[in-house]
Amino acid sequence: MKTVKIGLLGLGNIGTGTYKVLEMNRAQAEAASGARLIIDKILEKDVTKERDIPVNPKEFLQDPDGVLKNPDIDIVVELLGGVEPATTFMLTAMQNKKHVVTANKAALAANYDKLMKCAIENGVIFKFEASVGGGIPLINAITTVLRGNQFDEVMGIVNGTTNYILTQMTDNGLEYADVLKVAQEKGFAEADPTADVEGHDVANKLTILMALLFDKYVKPEDIPTEGISKITKKEIEDARAKGCKIKLLATAKCIDGKLECSVKPTLVENSHPLAGVSNEFNAVFIHGNAVDNLMFYGRGAGPLPTGSAILGDIIEIAKRV
Amino acid sequence: MKTVKIGLLGLGNIGTGTYKVLEMNRAQAEAASGARLIIDKILEKDVTKERDIPVNPKEFLQDPDGVLKNPDIDIVVELLGGVEPATTFMLTAMQNKKHVVTANKAALAANYDKLMKCAIENGVIFKFEASVGGGIPLINAITTVLRGNQFDEVMGIVNGTTNYILTQMTDNGLEYADVLKVAQEKGFAEADPTADVEGHDVANKLTILMALLFDKYVKPEDIPTEGISKITKKEIEDARAKGCKIKLLATAKCIDGKLECSVKPTLVENSHPLAGVSNEFNAVFIHGNAVDNLMFYGRGAGPLPTGSAILGDIIEIAKRV
Repeated sequence: MKTVKIGLLGLGNIGTGTYKVLEMNRAQAEAASGARLIIDKILEKDVTKERDIPVNPKEFLQDPDGVLKNPDIDIVVELLGGVEPATTFMLTAMQNKKHVVTANKAALAANYDKLMKCAIENGVIFKFEASVGGGIPLINAITTVLRGNQFDEVMGIVNGTTNYILTQMTDNGLEYADVLKVAQEKGFAEADPTADVEGHDVANKLTILMALLFDKYVKPEDIPTEGISKITKKEIEDARAKGCKIKLLATAKCIDGKLECSVKPTLVENSHPLAGVSNEFNAVFIHGNAVDNLMFYGRGAGPLPTGSAILGDIIEIAKRV
Repeated sequence: MKTVKIGLLGLGNIGTGTYKVLEMNRAQAEAASGARLIIDKILEKDVTKERDIPVNPKEFLQDPDGVLKNPDIDIVVELLGGVEPATTFMLTAMQNKKHVVTANKAALAANYDKLMKCAIENGVIFKFEASVGGGIPLINAITTVLRGNQFDEVMGIVNGTTNYILTQMTDNGLEYADVLKVAQEKGFAEADPTADVEGHDVANKLTILMALLFDKYVKPEDIPTEGISKITKKEIEDARAKGCKIKLLATAKCIDGKLECSVKPTLVENSHPLAGVSNEFNAVFIHGNAVDNLMFYGRGAGPLPTGSAILGDIIEIAKRV
């Protein structure tokens, strides 16, 4: 059996989750990939954080080149988050003929064309299943078995924090500020929730979906974007009276080459499958000219579901190296 | 660009749908597969049927060996339906080093181990995305990017005819026999609806799902199976009073190697995502130890959605030949 060596950039929640998923399901993953999967190097500054995995923080690298330019490493898994230095690290890895896996929607949305071009030029595989919808196997489906379709529409609930807040407001008749506070206490929302509640995280994900479905690269800052921070209890009551729920939707239509897209709170009829997507769950609805309507539903975040998607990408690459 | 030649066994509704999807989306499919995709031979007895595709029935083969043993054919696509002669044809194709794609859940469920073994022995690819859930890209996900999971549960609505009947009974307060009659008139149910309404079609699909998810091959006749023909308007009203819908569910749990499975009408709470799956739509819910809950939703039948799944399988094979 061949050996495939992995270098992790970042051992935060997602990195630790990926490590755990590989240890839990090593037999399945190695049988599927036909390779021994070894996490060989880890780039991580925080050596004091408590992590319940059998890794010695003394072995963490502080020099990125120890992963990015290491001739032993086959796959670089980028889990740092943020646009930089993540983008530069991924480009450097590709230039050093490493295959790259990322969960980083911000870096991918900001530099989609640059990253795709660099992967092609260097003949490496670039995969990012975890960047949209966490554990949901959406991106692989769009890029492989659904390629016998032309897509014209996508609608998604792709941010768990905002969907949790809207669900709690709807189910318990609460105001936004009160639910946000509880969500922050429970760890479902960050101390600075701006990127989530103002829709910027959703816009990043819509950029990625439009590039894959329509072959159109629209930068996230060019997507009309409105968050949920101004939604009131009354608006939710009014929606209920109309048989609807308010959901923060990423939507795009591409008809005869004309693209319309937005991120905004939207009335969804109770009978629509997206209306039943509650709390931290995500779902993405797409329409293709052969397959018609499809919906994918699952956990859009969390260390283990996200780790499942990252390990899936690693398996697919390991099969082919 | 390489050329991949396809032999179709059967040009009924699904075969015609597959032909149309390839013509509609040829550019996308060929770019994705890196191959020219040519339907080179068609085995079909019915030369008089009206088909709105540019094929001359005079060219239909009547001798299966003209496809199965034809040295020019790379991929045999089996769309005959039924256990035989479909199984024998697929085995013969594999023995002649053809890759095989099928939509035939009856043949696959009846002879799963024989077909898988034959594919491995002959070093050919065997794909069957369309056999469960029509256009829904479920099987590819389970067999590729979700392989970093151990699965312990599956629940599915995988028969459009019965889901249509139950939905119409629920929404319009009708009795089974009355809805069945309308469904037959509309072409949603066959003249002899037994295989659908008594759950046998669902059992075939559950056999396939259990084999893939749990690596356990249970023949469909060994699955406790109950259909919907005895469901009354009153039972549906009683379910409604409990906040539930009645759905014909295929369910299986595999915990510590112990497998429980059944096909039967089941109460599903209105808040469960499967409750919102109406009429001819299908959905499959699975649980993995890393990814947690996932649901796939889409059209479980119909020429174009099924053709989408078949073309997806062809694309994945064409990439690799």
